This record gives sequence, C-alpha cells and structure tokens, in this order.
Amino acid sequence: TLASCSRPGKSPGVTTGLPNVRWRMATSWPKSLGTFIGAETVSQRVKEMTNGRFRITPFAAGELVPGLQVLDAVQGGTVECGHTSSYYYIGKSPALAFATSVPFGLNAQQQNAWLYHGGGLEAIQKIYTSFNVINFPAGSTGAQMGGWFKREIKSVADLKGLKMRIPGLGGQVMSRLGVNVQVLPGGEIFLALDRGAIDAAEWVGPYDDEKLGLNKAAQFYYYPGWWEPGPTLDVLVNLNAWNRLPKEYQEVLKAATYEANVNMLTQYDALNGQVLSNLVASGTKLVPYSQDILQAAEKISFEIFAENASKDANFKQVYEQWKGFREQIYNWNRVNELSFANFVTSSQR
Amino acid sequence: TLASCSRPGKSPGVTTGLPNVRWRMATSWPKSLGTFIGAETVSQRVKEMTNGRFRITPFAAGELVPGLQVLDAVQGGTVECGHTSSYYYIGKSPALAFATSVPFGLNAQQQNAWLYHGGGLEAIQKIYTSFNVINFPAGSTGAQMGGWFKREIKSVADLKGLKMRIPGLGGQVMSRLGVNVQVLPGGEIFLALDRGAIDAAEWVGPYDDEKLGLNKAAQFYYYPGWWEPGPTLDVLVNLNAWNRLPKEYQEVLKAATYEANVNMLTQYDALNGQVLSNLVASGTKLVPYSQDILQAAEKISFEIFAENASKDANFKQVYEQWKGFREQIYNWNRVNELSFANFVTSSQR
Repeated sequence: TLASCSRPGKSPGVTTGLPNVRWRMATSWPKSLGTFIGAETVSQRVKEMTNGRFRITPFAAGELVPGLQVLDAVQGGTVECGHTSSYYYIGKSPALAFATSVPFGLNAQQQNAWLYHGGGLEAIQKIYTSFNVINFPAGSTGAQMGGWFKREIKSVADLKGLKMRIPGLGGQVMSRLGVNVQVLPGGEIFLALDRGAIDAAEWVGPYDDEKLGLNKAAQFYYYPGWWEPGPTLDVLVNLNAWNRLPKEYQEVLKAATYEANVNMLTQYDALNGQVLSNLVASGTKLVPYSQDILQAAEKISFEIFAENASKDANFKQVYEQWKGFREQIYNWNRVNELSFANFVTSSQR
Repeated sequence: TLASCSRPGKSPGVTTGLPNVRWRMATSWPKSLGTFIGAETVSQRVKEMTNGRFRITPFAAGELVPGLQVLDAVQGGTVECGHTSSYYYIGKSPALAFATSVPFGLNAQQQNAWLYHGGGLEAIQKIYTSFNVINFPAGSTGAQMGGWFKREIKSVADLKGLKMRIPGLGGQVMSRLGVNVQVLPGGEIFLALDRGAIDAAEWVGPYDDEKLGLNKAAQFYYYPGWWEPGPTLDVLVNLNAWNRLPKEYQEVLKAATYEANVNMLTQYDALNGQVLSNLVASGTKLVPYSQDILQAAEKISFEIFAENASKDANFKQVYEQWKGFREQIYNWNRVNELSFANFVTSSQR
C-alpha cells in the first residue's frame, strides 16, 4: 500500500479561493514558425497547471501590435505579457543582446548555464526593471545556420558589396566586412532572394528556412550561424500585472517558461535533423564558412562589444561578467563535451 | 492601463477544493552531492506552485530504502515516488539504459531531444508501465569525466589488469578491455583509491569528484567520460499514486521535472567550470583518452548493444529507433553546433 500522509478523496478539500485570470500575450512571430511554439507552450502549460483558472492567449505578430514592438506593448500595459527576442530592443538598451545571443557567444546549453546559474538572468532582469518589466527565458532555437547564398563565398573578399538580409549585431559585423546589409521581415525574404534583389539571407535553420522556401531561392547553405550560436527567446511580463498575480500563479508561469525553453530547443533539434537530410537530398549544398571569414568576423564582433561597453555602463557590466563566464565554460565544455563530440562524429559508427 | 479581462481582487475567488497531498520521494543520492539537487528542485517547485497543498519530501539514499532499490520501493508502493537513474535497473529491463545514458550515446541536449521529441520518453514510459510506474526526466549531469587514474594510460594494453571502480555498461566495456572492474558505493571510493586497493575510479565530474576527494588520491584525470555523455535522471511515480492525483497536480509535477532537468544541468555546467580550474591549479593533470582506447571501447559498446538486442525484444525496439535518431542528430549537430564549438574553442579570444 501507498504510505501517503493524506490522499485525495480522504482529506477535506482546501478552499483556495484562487481567481480567474485572463492575459493576452503579444508575440513577434507568425503562427506558422517554430518560434511560436514557445508562446504556445507557456499558454498551454499555465492553463493545464491551474485547471484553466489562469489563461494566457498568445497572438501572432501584427494581431495586437507589430512584431518588433512587444516590449513597448508590455511596458505600456497594452498587454500583460509578450514572447519575443530581447535583442530586438538593443536600441533601448544594448546589453539586452546578451539575453538572446551575441556573435561568437554561448551555445544553447551554455546560455542556459549563464542565465540560470551564472548570474545572467539576474543581470538582465535588473535591466528590464527600468522598463517596468520582468523577463523569463522561454525558448531557444539552438545554434542557427549561417544563411543562404546564391553563389559561393570563399573569402572575406567575396563578401564585399554582397546584398544580404541579416539584422542585429550579426548585420553590424557583416556590414564592417563590406556586406550591403538589408533588413526585411520574414515574409519578404523569399521573393527578394528569388528575384535577385538580395544575394543572400539568413533566417533560423532548416525547419523554418524551408517553410519560407529559401532553399528554392538559393543553393548554398552556410554554417555555422556564428552570429546566433544559441538564441534564447523571452517571456516579458508587465511588472504591475506580475505583482497582482497570486504567488502560486507566478510560480506556475515561471515553471511554464522553463518547460517552453526545453521544449522549443528539443523540438527544433529533432525537426532540423530531419529537414536537413531532405534539403541535402534535394540539392542544397552545405558549405562551411572559411576560417578567414570566421576570424575576421570574430575580431570585429569583439571590437563592437568593446565599443558598446565604452558607451553604455549596463553593457559594460554585463559584458565583463559574461566574458569571464564564457571563458570558463568554454574551457569546461572543451574537455567534457567537445572531445566526445569530435570523436563520435568523426567515427560515425 | 492593463487590459486584463479579470483581475485578482476583482473577480470572485474560485473554490477549487484542491486536496492536501503529502508524498515521500526515495532517492539514490547522498544529500551532499549535486544529483540530489534534482530531487530538491522537484520538491520545492511543486510546493511553490500549489501554495504548499502538494508536498513531496525527498529522502537521501538509505533513509527509507537503499539507493539502488528506488524502483522497487516505487513499484511496491512503499513510497509514492523516487528520484534515481534508470540504468540502475538494467537487470530488470536492459532497455532502461537508454533512459539514462549509454556508452557513445547522446549528449545532454541530444538526449532531451530524443526523450521529448524523438519518441524516447514514450518508449521508456511504455517499459515502465509494466512496473506500474511512470517516469519523467528530472535532471542531467551533462557529459561526465573519464575518471581518475593513479598512473597514465596510453593505450589499450595499459588497461589490462587495472583495478577500476566503474559500474554499469561502462564497466562491461572496460571489463572486455581487460580491466578488473570493481563496483563500490560513492562513500568508499576515496579510501580504496587512496590506499591503492584500486588503481582508478570514475564518479561524475569535477564538482562531485572533488567533494569525494578523488583529486587527492589520484593525479591523472581522463576525458571524455565516453560511457556517460549525457546522463539523465528520472522521477519515478507509482501509477496508483499518479492516477489518484488531481489532473492539475499531475501537470504541476510534470512541469517541475522539466525545470529540475534544466536546473541540474545548468548548475553542474556552471559549478564544474569553476572547480575544474581549481583542480588544474592544484596539480590535477587533464589527459584525453587515446584514439585507440576510444575506438576499441566504441566497437565493444556496439557489440554489447547488439547482444542485448538479440536477447531482449524491448531493448531491440528501443535501440533501433534510438540508433536512427542518433545518426540524424549527430549529422545535424555536426553542422550547426560542432563547427561553431571547434572554431571558438580553438580561437579562445
């Protein structure tokens, strides 16, 4: 028999008096893409854990507010919460880039270690407080791909004058490498690339890129996506709304973001593996970036970090702490993870 | 203003009538080690998410039942749940090895992808059903280290006759490589190694190994821990107890296991990085396993898998599905993760 101290049905029900709460969640994603999974997971799990008392309805980009204005909508109280990439808001605070991913930064597992146990989340939450917002990591795409090119790029010289769709810090690095950087929303990339208005474009990885049809517009698929080695998405919550939640709903929401974080990454990893095989079978050519491009891009990335640090005190503080963590976890993962991965991958039994 | 449909304090409280539930959790761990964190996280988060209505008390190995008898205790209903490694029970069903980790298998992120989105968890839960148990992944150590040796091991020949503490499938592989395999509980390893009763021993990684004092008993610290590239720990729940839980407590418990899974891995990654630096600074010599040892060990591992598959139908089914997933995710991660990790690690800016 089970030695439980009390059992459902035998102990009197507790009258918890928990309120019904209905929230709206603005997101930066079309519903068709993998990134929307993070928002859906949070919504579904909160509902299941509270037997429907606490419900959060996610909306696609543009349904309530434009996809890149989620922070503004949450800050202003138009919605209680959002699901977005913090690096969309580096114009407001450059240090928010570290919440998502920076060029030559951390992979998904290292990013989680930094956020949850390396001081990262505390540092980012401190920055968000000045926006009247609290953030929780709630999804990751894993290491992204390095984009689609209509012709081969063998050296830094080949990048000069190339028109490429690439936003954010990666775009800043590419720009200094001579690329003519374009920023287009996801829905416009295929046509621009297909018609030759641009020569190259990056989006996410095999699963989402194939949905956009990018493999039909360009043949050369580069790797690695050095500008986004482990992008984490965030749930942003308006602090007034957060403070009004019963404590246990707060805890339920936090747990749901952890689950969303794992669920999105593992779903991407499983789906991308399948789609990559199909892409290669149907003519996509996988090409690694050359060492000279990677080296030049890395050098420029750290120059950009240093420039940001000299101009913004928050960036400086987060960057220096992050840099120390990065060195330590690189050293650890070089020993335990990388040595193993290199052996089994070369062996491919 | 916030556009919530209803707010705490304005809407009438819902009388949920949720019961108080008290469970006991047997674990396989001493309280001092990192693996106990997984059990504590599940316990703490369930309590917080239910405002203390649902409480699970974790017990150290030996407090209620011996550390390697957690499955029996959960199956028999001595406790409602446990926190343990499924591969401790390969004597009952060899396929349970895949729930934790197998030699030359998946790293932590790949293991999660297999479990949550590659059919792995369904396959393992099906096996556990015959024990009247349901399992949930609830912790990972990340890729482990390859153990402590009192002298250098340069080739397979150097392994012959060596006395080494190493349990499980890793021990079976080592045995076929000529090692005199010993199985000792954690608390006895230091003395045996220090006094020379054994020549080598593996435990987990820098953080836990230093707690056992292994660095004071042997100088050479080998990597990678090819027999445990991404060990996942499990919460096991008695199915009768599970079925008696209100649905929302079931969902809360599931979410807590996701959080425990992430939390343990990221905590280990952050802690191990720090401790590894200290170990090296205080005289520990890091040594990679030679290619000939890795190749011989991999070959034997797959022979052992094939032998198990020929003897056990469950093992065969899980193994074949797992093997296909492994190939696919290795191919994907070689492209997106490994190419990046090798560049940034060699660059070490």
